[in-house]
Formats: sequence, C-alpha cells, structure tokens
Amino acid sequence: MSANDPHRAGLFPHRHLLGIEGLQPQEILGLLDRADQAVEVSRQIEKVRPVLRGRTQINLFFEASTRTQSSFEIAGKRLGADVMNMQVAASSVKKGETLIDTAATLNAMHPDILVVRHHAAGAVHLLARKVDCSVINAGDGQHEHPTQALLDALTIRRHKGKIARLTIAICGDILHSRVARSNIILLNALGARVRVVAPSTLLPSGIDRMGVEVFRDMKEGLKGADIVMMLRLQRERMNGAFIPSVREYYRFYGLDAEKLAYAKEDALVMHPGPMNRGVEIDPAVADGPQSLIREQVEMGVAVRMAVLEALAAHLPNQ
Amino acid sequence: MSANDPHRAGLFPHRHLLGIEGLQPQEILGLLDRADQAVEVSRQIEKVRPVLRGRTQINLFFEASTRTQSSFEIAGKRLGADVMNMQVAASSVKKGETLIDTAATLNAMHPDILVVRHHAAGAVHLLARKVDCSVINAGDGQHEHPTQALLDALTIRRHKGKIARLTIAICGDILHSRVARSNIILLNALGARVRVVAPSTLLPSGIDRMGVEVFRDMKEGLKGADIVMMLRLQRERMNGAFIPSVREYYRFYGLDAEKLAYAKEDALVMHPGPMNRGVEIDPAVADGPQSLIREQVEMGVAVRMAVLEALAAHLPNQ
Amino acid sequence: MSANDPHRAGLFPHRHLLGIEGLQPQEILGLLDRADQAVEVSRQIEKVRPVLRGRTQINLFFEASTRTQSSFEIAGKRLGADVMNMQVAASSVKKGETLIDTAATLNAMHPDILVVRHHAAGAVHLLARKVDCSVINAGDGQHEHPTQALLDALTIRRHKGKIARLTIAICGDILHSRVARSNIILLNALGARVRVVAPSTLLPSGIDRMGVEVFRDMKEGLKGADIVMMLRLQRERMNGAFIPSVREYYRFYGLDAEKLAYAKEDALVMHPGPMNRGVEIDPAVADGPQSLIREQVEMGVAVRMAVLEALAAHLPNQ
Repeated sequence: MSANDPHRAGLFPHRHLLGIEGLQPQEILGLLDRADQAVEVSRQIEKVRPVLRGRTQINLFFEASTRTQSSFEIAGKRLGADVMNMQVAASSVKKGETLIDTAATLNAMHPDILVVRHHAAGAVHLLARKVDCSVINAGDGQHEHPTQALLDALTIRRHKGKIARLTIAICGDILHSRVARSNIILLNALGARVRVVAPSTLLPSGIDRMGVEVFRDMKEGLKGADIVMMLRLQRERMNGAFIPSVREYYRFYGLDAEKLAYAKEDALVMHPGPMNRGVEIDPAVADGPQSLIREQVEMGVAVRMAVLEALAAHLPNQ
Repeated sequence: MSANDPHRAGLFPHRHLLGIEGLQPQEILGLLDRADQAVEVSRQIEKVRPVLRGRTQINLFFEASTRTQSSFEIAGKRLGADVMNMQVAASSVKKGETLIDTAATLNAMHPDILVVRHHAAGAVHLLARKVDCSVINAGDGQHEHPTQALLDALTIRRHKGKIARLTIAICGDILHSRVARSNIILLNALGARVRVVAPSTLLPSGIDRMGVEVFRDMKEGLKGADIVMMLRLQRERMNGAFIPSVREYYRFYGLDAEKLAYAKEDALVMHPGPMNRGVEIDPAVADGPQSLIREQVEMGVAVRMAVLEALAAHLPNQ
Repeated sequence: MSANDPHRAGLFPHRHLLGIEGLQPQEILGLLDRADQAVEVSRQIEKVRPVLRGRTQINLFFEASTRTQSSFEIAGKRLGADVMNMQVAASSVKKGETLIDTAATLNAMHPDILVVRHHAAGAVHLLARKVDCSVINAGDGQHEHPTQALLDALTIRRHKGKIARLTIAICGDILHSRVARSNIILLNALGARVRVVAPSTLLPSGIDRMGVEVFRDMKEGLKGADIVMMLRLQRERMNGAFIPSVREYYRFYGLDAEKLAYAKEDALVMHPGPMNRGVEIDPAVADGPQSLIREQVEMGVAVRMAVLEALAAHLPNQ
C-alpha cells in the first residue's frame, strides 16, 4: 500500500479523523481507495508495508466494544504498530482523574496514534486539542463514528461500483445512532439519495435539515432502495418511552423478507452489529443472500488500516 | 524447530485441535516430539523460527484463566504472532450477541488461529464449523482440554521415557473434569494403564466404558502407580451434594505422604493447577521431590508452541 | 543506548530492582544517566536498540494503575520485548491460588522480566526469591515505588542540573505513601535536603529517623524550597480519622499560589498523579508555569526503559 499514490490516495490533509463532517468528497474517496488496496494486501501478508513499525498506538476505550477495538488492534498490528489497550474501567478514571488529565498523561508518553471511544459527544474533539499525536474517533456518544461510515461506504462501493445516485434507506433508531449520523453525512457528500425510516420517537429533531427524506413506514421507505441499512436497537431503549414493545417494534420496523421485498430486487442489507436477531432484523434476512453484514466486518479492518496509514504520513520522522 | 521433520513431527493432518478424541497415536507422538524440540529452542531464543510472523492469533476466552491464556499468549508471541486477547466479559456477549455472531465477526477479521475456552461442551466444535481459521480448544465445559493432556503426557514421557505400560492414577473430581477426560483418552491411546480414583459422587456414569479401572479408595487406587495425577476440586463443589465437607474430602482423597507411600517408590505427582492446598493435596507433597507440578507449566508453553507450529503448516501462503 | 558505557551507565550490579533502599549513589546516578539517553533515543525511534527482542516481559499488577502499567508496557515494547499484561483480578487469585503458586507458575513459563505491583509491602521481595527472572517493583503496599523515585529525580536533575544540596519538600500523606518513602531514600542518598510537611495524623512513626526535617505547617515547610513535591490523598483517607474534611485539608495542606509563594521564586512543583484537583493541589498551580507534572510522565517512560535495559544485561544469552 503506497502512501504516495499520484491521485486520490495521496496525502490525507488532516492530522486527526474526528468525524466525517468537514471531509471533502475527494478525501473520502481517497480513503476508500486506500482501503480497497488494504483489502488486497492484507490477503498476502508479505505485501503489507509496516508503516507503523516502532510506533505506539493506544486504544483508549471508555465504552466496551468487541468489534471496533479488535478491528483497530488487528489493523495497527498488521501495520507493525505496538498497540496498547487502555483498561479504562480499571484505570485512573475510577480514581476521579479528569478526561483532560488522562489525555495529558497519555500524551506525555508520546504515543503516535490515539484511538478513542467515549460516551460523550465532543470528548474526542476535546482530547484532540490537548494531545500532540493523531486522534481517531472510534465513536463519541451520539455524535459520530467515522470509520463505521467509511467501512459501510467501502462495502457498498465494492458491490454497486459507486455511491452516487444510489437510494439508501437507514432504518431504526436514528435518534441515538452515531452510525446513522456519520453515514448520512458521508453518503450525502458522495451524492447518494439518503432516506431515514423510523418511528417519530426515534427520529432526532432537525432531521429534515440533514438532507434526508424521512419515512415513518418501512414499506414506503424501502420502496426502490438499493441499500437497506438496519441499525441496532439499544437494549436500554426497549422498554419505556421510545418503543411500545420489542414485539411491536419488530412487527413494524424489523426487517424481514416481506418488507425487504419492497426494496429493489438486487437490494443489499447491512447492519453495523452486534445484531439483535428478532428485534430489528429477522435472522433469515441477516444470514440471507442479500446480506453484506459479514463483509462489513472484513471491510472494517481494511478501512482502519487505510485510516492509520493515511495518518501515519503526518508522524514526525516518517 | 522444523516443520519438515521426516518422521513423526511431519505434517499434522488436522486443521484444528478440538480434542484428543479422534487423534491417532502417531499424531499424538508427533506433537510430543515437536514439543520436545520446542523445549530446547525456547531456551535459546535465537533458535526459534518465527513461523507465525505476520499472523494473527486471537485468544477468545469466555472463562477466565491465568495459566492457559498466558501460556498460549507466550507461545504465540515466541513464534512471532500478533496475539490479541478478546475481553469477552466486557464484550458483545453482554450485548446479547450469539456465539455464532461472535464467531462470524471474528472470522471476518481473518485471524489465522483462534484459541477458544468456553463454558459449554461443544461450543468449540460449533465455532470451528463456522470459521475459516484454525481453532484450538483451550477447554470446553466438561468435555476436553487437549493441550493440557498433551503437556501432561510430555511431562511424563520426559521423566519416564515412555507412556506405554505405565500405571497412571487420576484422582479426585473426575465427574466435572475436562482434564481427566482428555487425559484418559490420550493415555489410553498411548497404551498406559489408566485408573480413576474418586468417591461415587464424583464419577461420571459410563466411566466403565472409558477403558479405565475404577477405584473408590485412594490406597487401593495408588498401589503400584507410576504417576499420581491429582485434579482440582472446584470451590463450587465443596459444599453440597458432591462431598460431605472439605475436611472429610481431604482425609479420604487428599494426597499426603501417607497415601503417596502406596504408589511406587519412584512415583511422580502431577496437578493441572491452580491447586487447593490442603483440599486435594498436602502442600508438602505438592512442593516435594516427587512433584512435577512446576514442570507441567513449563511444558505447557512448549506444547502450545508445538501445536501452533503444527497448525501453522495449514495456513495459506505459508 | 549503549549498555557498555565506560562510566556510570556501565553494568548495573543488581539482577532485580526491588527498592531504592540498598542502592549506591553511583548506581542511582548510572540509572539516571541511562534514562537521559533514553529520553533522547526515544525521540528518534530508529535509534532505539531492541535489547529486549525475543524477551518476555510480564506486567503482573495486583492493583490497577493506568500510568505505571502503561509506562512499563510502552517502555518494554519500545525495546522490542513481548509484553504480557496479567489480568490479576480475573485470574487464579480469585480461585484462591497463593501468591507463591502464582509466582511459581509464571516462573515456569520462563519470562525474562517480571514487573510487579502488589498491595502488600514485601510481596515483591518474596516473589523475587521464588523466580529466576529479573523482578521490578512497580509499587508494593506502602513500602517502595523505586521507578517513581527515579523518574522524579531525573525530572529534577534535568531542570536543576543536580540533586545534591537542593531543598525538597514532600507534602501531604507521607504515612501511606510508597512514593514518599522511595523519594526520601533516593534524595537523601544523592545529598538533597529533604523535608516532609504533613499533619501529625499523616506522618509515620519513626519519620525522624529517616533523615528528614519534619514540618506540620506548609508555609514553614515550603520556605526556601527548590522543589515542592505534592502527594496524592487517597480517597479512602478523606473521611475519617486521618483528616477532618477535604475542605479543611485543602485549606491547610492544598498547594495554591499563596502557599507556593513561600518557596523559592524558581521553585518547581511535582505530583506523581493522578491528582485530586482542589484537594491536595489547586488546578491553577498544577497547570501553571512552575509545574513539572506532565514532564514527570514523560520521564516515566524513559526511566523504565533505562531500568529494563540495565537489567537486560543480566539475562542469559544476552
């Protein structure tokens, strides 16, 4: 994977990746091109260039996550980095240290890359202002999750050949989803027609100003869609004000074969995982021929390799 | 350590190591030969061949374990692998993801080797059917723990020069012990005379069909034994239906000098650890001249290196 | 970084680093010289000599710690070691295994370096007697924390050019602080004038015999000080017998601009972290121009690299 490709995969002009917001379409496409290359080279391990050899990558996760943390760990190690996972629950946070002190402490150890997940929107931006190294947002509250949006776009592009002019329906808990937010921004930037489909209680106010078409009915929302992107329903929303019951939710918003039939015949199904089978998606659809769910995970490693490599160009002595 | 030894240490014909059951005696001996070599090379680090360089080994432990996980981690790193420990308690399992989804997720990240411990018998076999990489069973419920049986056999063979025709008494909680099960299968396959010694409440039904002699009295069971292999009594069995009391248990089944005297004069004592000193074994015996307990741990790293190396031959691009 | 420097940075004559007590001043200075070199080389990663390549470093932490464990992990990895963090809370300790059994188990895996933190004073010495590898004390109860004292000394020396004849005031919870204890021994060994400043309830008996001047009043204790070293007040001491209230404590012993004014004009402020802002230190002072607190963390990595490299010379086959 070369950092010196003449065209789009050239220099990524940002030192951090904090969100999709603010990225230019050409920058997004450049990252997707790099990720395509990463998919290829990681199938032949002897072709991977260890651009992070001798570099320290710290995965600082204030929220647990199997797939995102593992994916960043594997991506970093494949590129030769020393990867350190910070046990945040078992750490100084318990002792009452502030986020800023944690950041300053880590910074003083001179890591090269900090991958951060935090439960508060904006925490990652705050950190990035306080440290000298590159920061990657691995999910901050209900704000952004840029590498998830990139891997979703990569998966779509590898199957449909493009993003522009595709009709993409994002369905479910839009209100609490950083995945939805990053995807809406990215897919709009690349010229897709983005729809959101959800009950009113799971739609954020101001959704109309995000450049999406809003549907409250699945069948209407899925009509003619090229891509059906389901969102995870957080367990803590399942009882209470947001949805009447899991059963009701599944009946109206769970993706099954019947609802999927309203989308285009060659429509593809995505989910960021982990899935609640039988809540937002029927297992038969999740494991069916139209599903890209496993491939999304594979693309996750490639996208993270691409982002790490893009940011590595900004490291001193590189 | 050469993967191309002409004789027994040649190609291991299985892509996974899920249990001792189903292995041919020659295959077991081949692994023990490799492990003997691993003991030697790991004493001179410059001689270790990094056959797993650039490879990803994931240790997926659904049950905590100091020694087994550490042992696999050290073995993998010595062979050059990128080793990732999955924090299963802090992971998606909490979020209700199924074992199959976890497997599929990991698989999509293209690990080369998956080392799995799970509290359910059969979980490891299920996983192996769902993933593309090699799977090593690091203990599944009360079913098998094949690398423990291999390291026990290696330890015995290095001291007695053989396994065949030795009299080996396995004592204690046979009912709940995957260690006992794997050892019985392995030692029988190599021609040992295997005895089990336990109170009736700690013997599985059908034990008679496993090719062992059954004793309910320690002194009888130890008479003439070459090897006395003690098992850990799980704390959760200590009160209740299985044994009347720890004190009673120790009196009848705890290995002390007096009971050990019934075995052969040169009998050797083993325990898979961690020990309950004063419950199943007298500290004086555990630390005494006949004990191989520390050496078992050392052999644990060698055996895991041998198994990893044997399976590495099946990796693509190798 | 050369292990063969002719002068002080030559052979470190000890196989373990269990405490500052017992080290000769020249040995301490030798470690500080090495650490100075480590600061330089770690800014140019291509100059780091991987003296621990192929070596296994186990971080065995019985108490959680963000900065100390991370710092040892980064230091070890920069020197090429395979670093393994032992999940002690999730480990055999829960199953009732003794410290000695844990030590013997680890030892049988042939690690090269064992970095240990334990809540009991003396536990690290006990371990060192039971294992074959080098042991580094990363904090044992209220006894010693030698690498913290070394990094404090390094930080001071880089700013003041020396340790000897400086007046250094260590303030706060002296009674429970292994940091204070190691610092008192080290700074005395190098010829500093050491003061302790604390309420009577937070002074250990026998403090008079440690070669320090004792003050109960901050302003008196800080008069003419070159260095003001604040200690963390453990949360568990904050209510109860040791201090009347956090508010009272801050008023009398919290370092603010007013109290700091009693020290020399060019006095520098230190804290081992994590800080309780508003308890033992005013945030304005912690982040102010006289504060060395961030630099202490940076020096932490350098000192641990220096100690690891010094002990590496004792490893077999080196």
